[in-house]
Amino acid sequence: MRQQVFHRLFETIEKYGYARYDGPILEPAEIYEAKSGQEIADQQLYSLVDRGGRRLALRPEMTPSAARMIAGNAGKLQFPVRWYCNVNCHRYERPQRGRLREHWQINVDVFGSDSPNCEIEIFELIHDMMSALGATKDMWVLRASDRVILESILIDIVGVEREKLAPASSLIDRWAKVPRERLVADAEELGIDDKQFHRLEEVLQSGQDVLGEISPDALSRSNLATVLKGEAKDLVKFDPFIVRGLQYYTGTVFEVFDLHPDNTRSLFGGGRYSDLAGLFTTQRIPGIGFGMGDVTLHDFLSVHGLRPQPGAEVDAAVVPIDDSLMPECRELARRLRQEGVRTSVPIEPRKLGKELVRASQDGARVAVIVGVREWERDVVIVRDLVAQEQVEVPVAEFTQRVKAALQPA
Amino acid sequence: MRQQVFHRLFETIEKYGYARYDGPILEPAEIYEAKSGQEIADQQLYSLVDRGGRRLALRPEMTPSAARMIAGNAGKLQFPVRWYCNVNCHRYERPQRGRLREHWQINVDVFGSDSPNCEIEIFELIHDMMSALGATKDMWVLRASDRVILESILIDIVGVEREKLAPASSLIDRWAKVPRERLVADAEELGIDDKQFHRLEEVLQSGQDVLGEISPDALSRSNLATVLKGEAKDLVKFDPFIVRGLQYYTGTVFEVFDLHPDNTRSLFGGGRYSDLAGLFTTQRIPGIGFGMGDVTLHDFLSVHGLRPQPGAEVDAAVVPIDDSLMPECRELARRLRQEGVRTSVPIEPRKLGKELVRASQDGARVAVIVGVREWERDVVIVRDLVAQEQVEVPVAEFTQRVKAALQPA
Repeated sequence: MRQQVFHRLFETIEKYGYARYDGPILEPAEIYEAKSGQEIADQQLYSLVDRGGRRLALRPEMTPSAARMIAGNAGKLQFPVRWYCNVNCHRYERPQRGRLREHWQINVDVFGSDSPNCEIEIFELIHDMMSALGATKDMWVLRASDRVILESILIDIVGVEREKLAPASSLIDRWAKVPRERLVADAEELGIDDKQFHRLEEVLQSGQDVLGEISPDALSRSNLATVLKGEAKDLVKFDPFIVRGLQYYTGTVFEVFDLHPDNTRSLFGGGRYSDLAGLFTTQRIPGIGFGMGDVTLHDFLSVHGLRPQPGAEVDAAVVPIDDSLMPECRELARRLRQEGVRTSVPIEPRKLGKELVRASQDGARVAVIVGVREWERDVVIVRDLVAQEQVEVPVAEFTQRVKAALQPA
Repeated sequence: MRQQVFHRLFETIEKYGYARYDGPILEPAEIYEAKSGQEIADQQLYSLVDRGGRRLALRPEMTPSAARMIAGNAGKLQFPVRWYCNVNCHRYERPQRGRLREHWQINVDVFGSDSPNCEIEIFELIHDMMSALGATKDMWVLRASDRVILESILIDIVGVEREKLAPASSLIDRWAKVPRERLVADAEELGIDDKQFHRLEEVLQSGQDVLGEISPDALSRSNLATVLKGEAKDLVKFDPFIVRGLQYYTGTVFEVFDLHPDNTRSLFGGGRYSDLAGLFTTQRIPGIGFGMGDVTLHDFLSVHGLRPQPGAEVDAAVVPIDDSLMPECRELARRLRQEGVRTSVPIEPRKLGKELVRASQDGARVAVIVGVREWERDVVIVRDLVAQEQVEVPVAEFTQRVKAALQPA
């Protein structure tokens, strides 16, 4: 299932010119402790000490590995570069809806550019990827904010002190998750008084209109604000509550939400970082990207009835009437495979009827039946397993006949 | 590179009707300690204790996971089943030619059958996979033996005691790797006297002819002997020195060897097991399979000059004369992608000439150039980046024009 779904996504991503990369699943533990945030480093890391005494961790996310590879190849790369990967990541946490300890993730990034063209491309790509899954626009929404806008709201409009920016951002991140009294109390600890809190509430709840209150300077520094003024504005909905926890985001942050009433959670998200690879190089490498996990995606496809049918393993089966004809069957199967037809032959001797049932269950729509007397006359039987009809066909013509029968009517 | 090569192999495997599966990279450490052999369990396992106190290991191989999945689904599966996977595995060892700590491996198995039809199919599939990589028959050879034959050589012909079968097999496994005096000494410890040792030497060195000396009973129990009598005999060369260390093999064992003089090592191999999933179910599940690793494969392709060229990321690029035309470029790129053309647009504003060089480097063979005055006249320029020729084309016709230019001449 994941293979089929992900394959469609890879095709879509590659249509935009993204190159595929990969990296090791074990990395030095420090690279996560430095950048991935306290929750991951302290509680969710699968770490081990190898026989050489090195502290290693199973990657909980791909970004630090990508940063190391980008930094290591910075001399050879022509920025901006478009990269994507498909990797398995581990986080030690209680398995729950949408979160398992091992998950597969597609990461898509543009490295080496500050331009809002990146945002537009990434947003457009997300729309195409969702379409490739069969999702229509009523099923999901892309919401975004910008750390530049958030900063302007908190400092310029509400009056939060600059050094309290991080905890104040975290307050907004928790807005919908904790009771209002708790927010008020937490805000007070950050020096946000009642009046300021009301102002914050008012601003956040004005949604799109907040942008009218932001300083022109902040607006001009915000890639998201630029996107929202242009042709791509309908791809994304501004939402000041989008914060995202990971510390390396510095600009645009975005999340795709499922709109299904039973499953109104974030499906995936990403953001812009002004300097990804600071741990590995002095060259500033900005970028923007997102990671899309298989678990939440699977839930999304399930609730919307978009899960693909289990794949048919074969198109055709070549079956002998008598086991002594297995060499002939293998020869015919070989010819079909050369023509691109996925073809099976029996492994265990079995009655013809049973073998045809088995072939159908494996997805075969056509069977080639090889009989002793038929083979002597240089013919085989080509049977349409769906229509339940069969014809005798000269061996010289059987591949064409099978391929014709496999064509959609 | 690996993606391209492996993709060709997946296509070949799927033509035989194998279904793809996957499994977790972390498994309980015990499942390797029970079956993978002492060397892996004691020295090569990356293990860790999770926060729940469980001892886990990064899988060093896929077979035990496959066994668990097969056993867990045995009630639902219709045996025999054809399965394959592509997984990353870890072994802690000194990195050296052909061996790295993390490697990717394709595993291919038929589960649930004792029939020699399995051997024939697996051998044929290996031939097809090697062809798919561009390898010709002078580059490699498939050698096989059978534990049944080995047992008959050691017990019936040489006279080794049955309880010394395992160490005597290991002796043969080490035959080419240690000096003769060492073999003689080790043999003596196993109760093999000089005369018996000479007989063993004689038998092993007679190659294919050994089969003439094996008891009819052993021959009839050997799937490999059956294969060597039939139509598929040219797919494989009998070699009594093939032993393979992994303890679960009980019948046919085989290895593919590179024939290049600089790299005459085993590329990959596999074998037959009479009961794979004994640790997980009482149902006997026999089978046969092999694992093909990326590292040795990479070496093989390199020494034979078969490594594929780095892939071109895009087919076409849509480039504006002026950055203000980016929305139009994106719209044209969207139309090309809908037609299946991998298309990039610029991210950073750049001079046209530079952008065309960049597009060529990304693999684009065609550029669509959008100019202000041309756009007003509803035309664009379609430039063949290889032939360095360009024409003005009405926007309504540009997708056809680009697709025509991308056709191989």
